Amino acid sequence: MRNAIFYHAGCPVCIDAEQQILGALDSQIAIDIVHLGDKPASIQQAESRGVQSVPALVLDDQVFHINFGAALVDLKGES
Amino acid sequence: MRNAIFYHAGCPVCIDAEQQILGALDSQIAIDIVHLGDKPASIQQAESRGVQSVPALVLDDQVFHINFGAALVDLKGES
Repeated sequence: MRNAIFYHAGCPVCIDAEQQILGALDSQIAIDIVHLGDKPASIQQAESRGVQSVPALVLDDQVFHINFGAALVDLKGES
Repeated sequence: MRNAIFYHAGCPVCIDAEQQILGALDSQIAIDIVHLGDKPASIQQAESRGVQSVPALVLDDQVFHINFGAALVDLKGES
């Protein structure tokens, strides 16, 4: 059983990516969807996994940033 | 039956993305893998689909650029 974590922040790019990419994944893959806008406490977890922007798909600990989305520093309001 | 086209140029980022993401897709999805380094003639086709950098996954005509890869203009040697 493989794992996927989809980090996003509710933006249109994120929603498109969520519906299309997650919808195309093998049904055997356990998918966890984390909305970093709703759960800012999860930003640190995402950063520790190597996530730099959202949307991002983490597949078995490997990070794939999708479509040049919002940077995590922007989500944290630091930039 | 859904279709996926994976555009890449053979770079390490591309190979990782190819193995992990394509490996996680539903087996019902027809996957076409296009190496733009080997097939420069396909760059125009990729551009017409909205691809700006590689690696990129096109799922049913929707483009998902992955991990800030090489820009197509660089592949064409224009920049």
